[in-house]
Amino acid sequence: MKVNITDSAKLFSTFASFPTVLITVEENIVTVTLIHIFSFSPPLLGIGIKPERYSYSLIKQVKEFVVNIPTKDLLKETMFCGAKSGRNVNKFKETGLTKELSLSVKTVSIKECPVNIECKVVQEIISGDRTWFIGEIVNGRIAEEYNVENSIQYWRGTYRLPGIIVK
Amino acid sequence: MKVNITDSAKLFSTFASFPTVLITVEENIVTVTLIHIFSFSPPLLGIGIKPERYSYSLIKQVKEFVVNIPTKDLLKETMFCGAKSGRNVNKFKETGLTKELSLSVKTVSIKECPVNIECKVVQEIISGDRTWFIGEIVNGRIAEEYNVENSIQYWRGTYRLPGIIVK
Repeated sequence: MKVNITDSAKLFSTFASFPTVLITVEENIVTVTLIHIFSFSPPLLGIGIKPERYSYSLIKQVKEFVVNIPTKDLLKETMFCGAKSGRNVNKFKETGLTKELSLSVKTVSIKECPVNIECKVVQEIISGDRTWFIGEIVNGRIAEEYNVENSIQYWRGTYRLPGIIVK
Repeated sequence: MKVNITDSAKLFSTFASFPTVLITVEENIVTVTLIHIFSFSPPLLGIGIKPERYSYSLIKQVKEFVVNIPTKDLLKETMFCGAKSGRNVNKFKETGLTKELSLSVKTVSIKECPVNIECKVVQEIISGDRTWFIGEIVNGRIAEEYNVENSIQYWRGTYRLPGIIVK
């Protein structure tokens, strides 16, 4: 039997999981699950950031970001970078993650992440409680040993691996 | 070793999976993986639709949609509604899915889907190759027996179940 639900938090919790990533802006790191593909051609990736977040002011200035995909062995670092603000903490220093020069943007990449996707902001959209910074992919790197099965999914307090393939 | 990759299709394929849903607009159904949460407060859900899709013209007119979450027993129907256009096919008739009156919108819900989230379009954004129709949640229903572990994830040709929880 279906029950009428108007509580949006309950409705949102019917989704299982989304990819979670580490976003770098300049030399700060923030964990983001509200990352979406906006367009394939041109290739656009957007991230939703609330105005009160430290990353918001950074990205407003530099208009670029790098999407760094963590794997399960970086779960602790991923959780740390989601819980702390870069206003108070140097997240590279605290996590021991390593800065790696990017190819086409000034913002650093994270060396330990097997995927780095470099984006330049081409559109900003205010939608509800946050701004969506939409970036065009300008360059990227993938580690030869990267296995998507080790990437991290997240939603509503729960971290997961990608699931069983159904046919 | 990391390899420089500029092919955006390869970079997008580093993401494992996203929730996939059946969107109804009026009495048509379309399978959508480019569905994103845009805001928690107000609660906003957006879907990315290309102008050439049949659903695009429908949603432009009625400015509402229902997000119907399918479970693994509806995989065949989910694949069908992603492959066919409502211009040529009556998808309710062809799949045998059942129309259910919605609570707060004229667009029908899908009875067999354990979750129905009713949205009214409050914002339209053109971003790259598609328009994002952003809807505010106005009502919803969840089946008491709904189990998020049976919901369907999709990306790049592969359907999945939600994965193992990591700690």
